[in-house]
Amino acid sequence: MAWGAIATWRMAHEGVEQALRLLAENEQAGNAVEVLIKTVEDYPYYKSVGYGGLPNAAGILEMDAAYMDGDSFKIGAVAGIQDVKNPISVAKKLSEEKFNSFRVGDGASAYAMLEGFERKNMLTRRAHRIWEKRLEEIRVHNLNPYDGHDTVGAITLDKKGSMAVGTSSSGLFMKEPGRVGDSPLSGSGFYVDSEIGGAAATGLGEDLMKGCLSYEIVRLMGEGFSPQAACDKAVYGFHEKLTRRYGKAGAFSLIAMNNKGEWGVATNVEFTFSVGNAQNEPQIFLANKGENQTTIIEPITKEWLEAYEKRIKAPID
Amino acid sequence: MAWGAIATWRMAHEGVEQALRLLAENEQAGNAVEVLIKTVEDYPYYKSVGYGGLPNAAGILEMDAAYMDGDSFKIGAVAGIQDVKNPISVAKKLSEEKFNSFRVGDGASAYAMLEGFERKNMLTRRAHRIWEKRLEEIRVHNLNPYDGHDTVGAITLDKKGSMAVGTSSSGLFMKEPGRVGDSPLSGSGFYVDSEIGGAAATGLGEDLMKGCLSYEIVRLMGEGFSPQAACDKAVYGFHEKLTRRYGKAGAFSLIAMNNKGEWGVATNVEFTFSVGNAQNEPQIFLANKGENQTTIIEPITKEWLEAYEKRIKAPID
Repeated sequence: MAWGAIATWRMAHEGVEQALRLLAENEQAGNAVEVLIKTVEDYPYYKSVGYGGLPNAAGILEMDAAYMDGDSFKIGAVAGIQDVKNPISVAKKLSEEKFNSFRVGDGASAYAMLEGFERKNMLTRRAHRIWEKRLEEIRVHNLNPYDGHDTVGAITLDKKGSMAVGTSSSGLFMKEPGRVGDSPLSGSGFYVDSEIGGAAATGLGEDLMKGCLSYEIVRLMGEGFSPQAACDKAVYGFHEKLTRRYGKAGAFSLIAMNNKGEWGVATNVEFTFSVGNAQNEPQIFLANKGENQTTIIEPITKEWLEAYEKRIKAPID
Repeated sequence: MAWGAIATWRMAHEGVEQALRLLAENEQAGNAVEVLIKTVEDYPYYKSVGYGGLPNAAGILEMDAAYMDGDSFKIGAVAGIQDVKNPISVAKKLSEEKFNSFRVGDGASAYAMLEGFERKNMLTRRAHRIWEKRLEEIRVHNLNPYDGHDTVGAITLDKKGSMAVGTSSSGLFMKEPGRVGDSPLSGSGFYVDSEIGGAAATGLGEDLMKGCLSYEIVRLMGEGFSPQAACDKAVYGFHEKLTRRYGKAGAFSLIAMNNKGEWGVATNVEFTFSVGNAQNEPQIFLANKGENQTTIIEPITKEWLEAYEKRIKAPID
């Protein structure tokens, strides 16, 4: 049987490797996607997800996450949750609830504590220092404060044909308290149907929720489009529509996998992702928007990876 | 030119009447939908929206609302907001923001206060008493605590062809703190595209967000389906799919209007709504699921209305 995993950004690669090892050993899609995303949440140098994530404008680290089961459509989600080690695990647990399965703010944090999830101060000294520096830059140079919104979104397919999707994010850097993006929002940040496939998003949440692109990509795959054709059609079609109607489209990148393990991506900015399946070892690729609603996808170079490694670990003065 | 307004539940009727008067006088769709929903939020006997809304399991009234502009796709939303007179107005204001336009919990309430929105203790004595009684009933009879989730959702079309949609809700009665339903979620609770039409939902949010039905109905109208055919296809198709895959579908009802002022609804429970347009005076209808993916729609009877009036104002012992 086919199996596979795909996830947004180079940061997800080690998680994709782990997920694929598990899937090869008959692990369930839901557990594999949780492990994948926990790997990203736990790594301190990724500053947009989990531990090490950058705080909001008030200096508080608020996180969003969601989980969806493609067999049953069960969804669990949290937004603005604080001080919990693995938001994805809280979301997955919430997906078992028939009621109250999307929790925000203090209610989300309280749920995690009551359910015994590990409490952790998720704000690293490094993240705090980056935040301080940024505040100063904004003040001195009168900058637009908002950049950086690298959600981890991931889709897994297991040998039994079940699929799952998960997302996790600390959201837009310098966001206002309580700001929520697309990551915990079904249809915008993620969607999966095991009879078809799944999709997940990263980018400017405020614009992603205007388009419901994850739902649309899954729907197009259900109509017979390949994952790549579905991503191209949905993403570039919406990019054009939003530019025409709203004036400007923010950055966004979508990934998709169908229930044969075939995959696709589309993006309006330079975008990295990691993917592997029963046939192909996990690999990091670089994607860019091409001409005529197409995507240019190439393997990542050694130089790119070395520069990335250096960048994320560079000293913060 | 065509214009019109449609909204969920009998409670929205006076708001629909007001919105239609405004639209006849060339008011913008966005302002008309705001007035419509404020009328429902302000009325103390509607216990699922705004003032008089029922509190959560902890006795706190937390409200959700959203606004979407069908010309530009601008969206503003709040969830778990407290102590603000008109959540819909906060959502509409947020829709003007390019960033931070969806705010939850304390961050949402703080935004409303900073922006000068009227602060109000939204918990009435009557709502508090209903909550106390319900707690006692749950304790004594070991009841499932969850029922009642009558969101107001409304769509307006103005003479210039612009459309808007809004939602407002105090959410599931006896919800856990921070629980969010579909009402503030684009694609699930609402969606609108002025070049096509709009849709909005009421019902069990946890299940509505599994289907992205508002987006799907607008998409189907864009493919040429009438609002009624689009509602029937999306709602009953998803009801069957969810029953098959999840085991049981919660209650949900959807309304739609296209940019000619034609409308449709579909529902898996008894459902009332109010609608009017350039040709027809506003009127309350009763809808029920028919056979073979159809909806039975009939004008509300005088007896039904009188019983309703009595019921919502009945003394709470």
